[in-house]
Amino acid sequence: MVDGCPPRLALTEADIQPDLDRRRPGQSSIVTPRKEADVVQILSGTFEGKTLGTPLSMWVRNEDARSEAYSEMAHKFRPSHADYTYQAKYGFRNWQGGGRSSARETIGRVAAGAVAKKILRERHGVEILGFVGQVQDIQATVDLDMFTADQVESNIVRCPCPTTAARMIERIETVRARGDSVGGIVMCVARGVPPGWGEPVFDRLEADLAKAMLSLPASKGFDVGSGFDGIMLTGSQHNDAMRMREGRVRTVSNRSGGIQGGISNGETVFFRVAFKPVATIMMEQDTVDTSGHDTTLKGRGRHDPCVLPRAVPMVEAMAALVLVDHALRHHAQCE
Amino acid sequence: MVDGCPPRLALTEADIQPDLDRRRPGQSSIVTPRKEADVVQILSGTFEGKTLGTPLSMWVRNEDARSEAYSEMAHKFRPSHADYTYQAKYGFRNWQGGGRSSARETIGRVAAGAVAKKILRERHGVEILGFVGQVQDIQATVDLDMFTADQVESNIVRCPCPTTAARMIERIETVRARGDSVGGIVMCVARGVPPGWGEPVFDRLEADLAKAMLSLPASKGFDVGSGFDGIMLTGSQHNDAMRMREGRVRTVSNRSGGIQGGISNGETVFFRVAFKPVATIMMEQDTVDTSGHDTTLKGRGRHDPCVLPRAVPMVEAMAALVLVDHALRHHAQCE
Amino acid sequence: MVDGCPPRLALTEADIQPDLDRRRPGQSSIVTPRKEADVVQILSGTFEGKTLGTPLSMWVRNEDARSEAYSEMAHKFRPSHADYTYQAKYGFRNWQGGGRSSARETIGRVAAGAVAKKILRERHGVEILGFVGQVQDIQATVDLDMFTADQVESNIVRCPCPTTAARMIERIETVRARGDSVGGIVMCVARGVPPGWGEPVFDRLEADLAKAMLSLPASKGFDVGSGFDGIMLTGSQHNDAMRMREGRVRTVSNRSGGIQGGISNGETVFFRVAFKPVATIMMEQDTVDTSGHDTTLKGRGRHDPCVLPRAVPMVEAMAALVLVDHALRHHAQCE
Amino acid sequence: MVDGCPPRLALTEADIQPDLDRRRPGQSSIVTPRKEADVVQILSGTFEGKTLGTPLSMWVRNEDARSEAYSEMAHKFRPSHADYTYQAKYGFRNWQGGGRSSARETIGRVAAGAVAKKILRERHGVEILGFVGQVQDIQATVDLDMFTADQVESNIVRCPCPTTAARMIERIETVRARGDSVGGIVMCVARGVPPGWGEPVFDRLEADLAKAMLSLPASKGFDVGSGFDGIMLTGSQHNDAMRMREGRVRTVSNRSGGIQGGISNGETVFFRVAFKPVATIMMEQDTVDTSGHDTTLKGRGRHDPCVLPRAVPMVEAMAALVLVDHALRHHAQCE
Repeated sequence: MVDGCPPRLALTEADIQPDLDRRRPGQSSIVTPRKEADVVQILSGTFEGKTLGTPLSMWVRNEDARSEAYSEMAHKFRPSHADYTYQAKYGFRNWQGGGRSSARETIGRVAAGAVAKKILRERHGVEILGFVGQVQDIQATVDLDMFTADQVESNIVRCPCPTTAARMIERIETVRARGDSVGGIVMCVARGVPPGWGEPVFDRLEADLAKAMLSLPASKGFDVGSGFDGIMLTGSQHNDAMRMREGRVRTVSNRSGGIQGGISNGETVFFRVAFKPVATIMMEQDTVDTSGHDTTLKGRGRHDPCVLPRAVPMVEAMAALVLVDHALRHHAQCE
Repeated sequence: MVDGCPPRLALTEADIQPDLDRRRPGQSSIVTPRKEADVVQILSGTFEGKTLGTPLSMWVRNEDARSEAYSEMAHKFRPSHADYTYQAKYGFRNWQGGGRSSARETIGRVAAGAVAKKILRERHGVEILGFVGQVQDIQATVDLDMFTADQVESNIVRCPCPTTAARMIERIETVRARGDSVGGIVMCVARGVPPGWGEPVFDRLEADLAKAMLSLPASKGFDVGSGFDGIMLTGSQHNDAMRMREGRVRTVSNRSGGIQGGISNGETVFFRVAFKPVATIMMEQDTVDTSGHDTTLKGRGRHDPCVLPRAVPMVEAMAALVLVDHALRHHAQCE
Repeated sequence: MVDGCPPRLALTEADIQPDLDRRRPGQSSIVTPRKEADVVQILSGTFEGKTLGTPLSMWVRNEDARSEAYSEMAHKFRPSHADYTYQAKYGFRNWQGGGRSSARETIGRVAAGAVAKKILRERHGVEILGFVGQVQDIQATVDLDMFTADQVESNIVRCPCPTTAARMIERIETVRARGDSVGGIVMCVARGVPPGWGEPVFDRLEADLAKAMLSLPASKGFDVGSGFDGIMLTGSQHNDAMRMREGRVRTVSNRSGGIQGGISNGETVFFRVAFKPVATIMMEQDTVDTSGHDTTLKGRGRHDPCVLPRAVPMVEAMAALVLVDHALRHHAQCE
Repeated sequence: MVDGCPPRLALTEADIQPDLDRRRPGQSSIVTPRKEADVVQILSGTFEGKTLGTPLSMWVRNEDARSEAYSEMAHKFRPSHADYTYQAKYGFRNWQGGGRSSARETIGRVAAGAVAKKILRERHGVEILGFVGQVQDIQATVDLDMFTADQVESNIVRCPCPTTAARMIERIETVRARGDSVGGIVMCVARGVPPGWGEPVFDRLEADLAKAMLSLPASKGFDVGSGFDGIMLTGSQHNDAMRMREGRVRTVSNRSGGIQGGISNGETVFFRVAFKPVATIMMEQDTVDTSGHDTTLKGRGRHDPCVLPRAVPMVEAMAALVLVDHALRHHAQCE
């Protein structure tokens, strides 16, 4: 369900399906082989191909759920999953596939994000692009102002640098062969954000981006602009000097990541999201059972050795939702 | 203004003032020499020394504001400050001291956080402790389960390791002498958080912590548990094995940072916050003026060469507010 | 979608269907003859017959929608409907059956309300009962502390007084025969509400009830306790004297309607909701078309001559949702 | 504190004080003789006489509080006040003057409402006008499209019909002489509301108005348009026929009260609010004490025999706040 979408926006399933396809299991040899078509259907909120301004409801059926693969989880907690914490919180849980804690919920985020991306693109000229910037120690060098969506989509790991992509893919295949998993970093840019989006104090633009990213399954960190690396610099090295360029106020560098005082300054917004190695591995691990005894558990089922390629559309989606929200807030109060 | 505080909590100014003193300007030789007593007065919400359950209003007066120090800012934008973005957003700004974008607003956060910390300590047995973990490249090694508040407060930089603290102080004094500034990392732990705090999907505990931290002035990054460093590990290295210990479900390691699937698991919650070098420096910088011309600006006034020592109580305050909020939500729905 | 339901509540479709049946078209000779089975299916949020604490999603399909009955509405605005206001607001509307403005949306409210009623009954001992108190000038005299659900359900107009019910039914049938419609009043009581539910200032219990009731289609007024009639009394006549009764603080009268200062006082909460005569009538009316010309329109389709019998479960549902919300808020902060 | 005010609105204390003067105690012979100047001071949120877009904080000091007048209330509950319910909710209360439950809190609403009224007037051409429509059985006949603010302010009871006003004043003086109190009805119109304000389903314009009005102290009922009286009509009598008038879609009658389907239709919005007789009376009443014994209490202090004249600016303020909120929401999504 998506509320708050403006009316009269041309919108059909064809606007949403491509991002679902980028998120979908089984899309390549380095993601889970689970087979889900993930076909979206718009149930309400549009009429004759345009949004009504009332809530959009979209519908994607599960097709390849195999609860039996999870039967051991009925009485054992998977390490570094949410099994134990859901049990502790609610005193009860759906152990089939993780229930509400399953990353399958991100399908809704990606569908909503596709709508948000369309609004940003058509009404505000804003483009959001994510890519895999790092897998373990394999790091890409990418010009944030120049890389394109086609470059990102040109390989299955979604890294716009083809040689780095090849090394990343090789690494992921190697760890998968061992039944293990790896993590890394998704980077994301928003180009064309006008000055003025974001709010003082609590709802700073980077604060809402941080919340959105840390709400994604398996994410462990977020930074914006110079981020954690910026702490090595002094203020005189770090500050973004300002100059007039073609009649606009610009910064010469962009260590601020396009946001100053919580509000966009017209430069490219960019940030990083760290994702841990996937918790489900095909190896035996120490754990406990629901009766309070030590035991072991070996992963089964069909899981991702690396969440990053499928996380790219998730990061883009959450970024788009945050930016649209701030666009509306800014428009409501200041324009 | 603080709403939602439970009734019948013993509360006077003496519970709040100590944290304001830790945040206050002029407290040591490595922070701004501005003189503010920052004395708090509770105006409403308590009666006979106890909370009423109705909103608390607290009051701290400015005493040493010198608007004349800011007169140049009326027509020039300070680089890497919010001057330009506020002007762009609102078409109008209070240029005296940064107005709403001034970090002076954090005094309200610290006051509210002191109340939250008391609730957590007295009603839930939760203790929140922050410290300066890194200044530029100077990094402290600290046992997160063992360090104490006294150790943190034993030196002016708020690093529990005295030898590292001495090096940090020396570095800050050196850069200040040059009119420059430095950044670094504040670390924070929450000990005693029971299993079950946090919500699925959007309001994960780490998501709300991330938002809270990125809402602090000068913060550029957040990570939890293994964070950005965790991406170097494989899943088999990273997963926290589970074992029964004294009748409780425990994890053997704590790379999760006390949170799994967005919900606390009973281990110590810990996270890091990156702060950029302070933007105000006593050096000439390129900038533009409000008429759209290139110009230069040299910092004036009385500013911090390093925000970290004063950021420690801010980080603790925001963490406390997030945790209390989740404690209430959990209690409301699940207990 | 219903969020915030506590975990471990026994819940199946059988808990929800009865209220949907009370709301359903075609249930009697004095409501619309449209045929909708309105069978509910719980899609998620429960497991093995109990709530998980995660969102409930429920699903009811339309079966007897006939868009062709509405084709004239594509270019004419129905008087006293939302056709024109939706067109004005969104610049675009789904003219088939009113789209989002159709009272069909109340099916979701009644389903959610059935869950809320179960929580109130099982966890708090609170019972919510509505009935039709007035149809045009035909007014029932009902003892608010004594009437029962069986009495309400014993006739098709849902008035616990059988003789008044007979007159109401006759009136509704008479106006229907003329192609016209009537309005009236639904009354509702909540028995067993403990003292302490409701919040100071903005979120008073009666304020949230008022909003909930005025959000129902065709509602035009709300009052609580003595309500509009109370203005005829003086303070000395109106005040509810207090006495101890069986160890509890009670009021001798209950003109307050169980709420004082926005917070429940332990007496029966009661209120009235005025519903206008249904706007769709089988008579020719003056209106305008979407091209801005005067025209006429005659109602077609299968509509209710009186919304009241079907509004009873809607009023109960909204009251239950408000009360559960306040129960949780009170529990979170004060217990 | 008022958040969300647009930037660059000219605003000084002179815009706010007049409404505070209309609400102020001691303004005439028929309200409480308590002496409060109620002088407002804007502490932040404006700069050089214009709003900054950041929160406004306004400050009004109490001057004539006499806690000793309330000492008996430390251990006795005033009938039909909030003393008992606050005690029951929080287990603790400030018995001096009712604490948070005192109607003194409405000063903040009126101050905020004055800002909202200015925004509505200057940016949207909307005018909000309330008046006393009924005191007990004394009812005014007023042309809702014609009466003026000057007529309302021409007498101390704030009824635009001078002869009815005289009778109302006489009635209030009579009941006050007996130590008793009376209630009545405040009516309110909003002229110039454009079509399109309000939201489907839960946040209908009339729903938010209803909540706002029922949140006012002593209010017991709300209706809009034909309201409770409309139930006597049939649909054919009640429906508002539509016609083109000067190129605009208009309704011939306005029983809808300017709102259809929760959204404004461009006609005058009007509604009524019922206020009970003031609970504080100078007569002995049965009550209980905090130790659980029956006792009696006689009102003391300086109270209003009728809340209506001072309630007029409160009703206007709450209406203005609701309308501004919907104006912003509509602007954000649809414009």
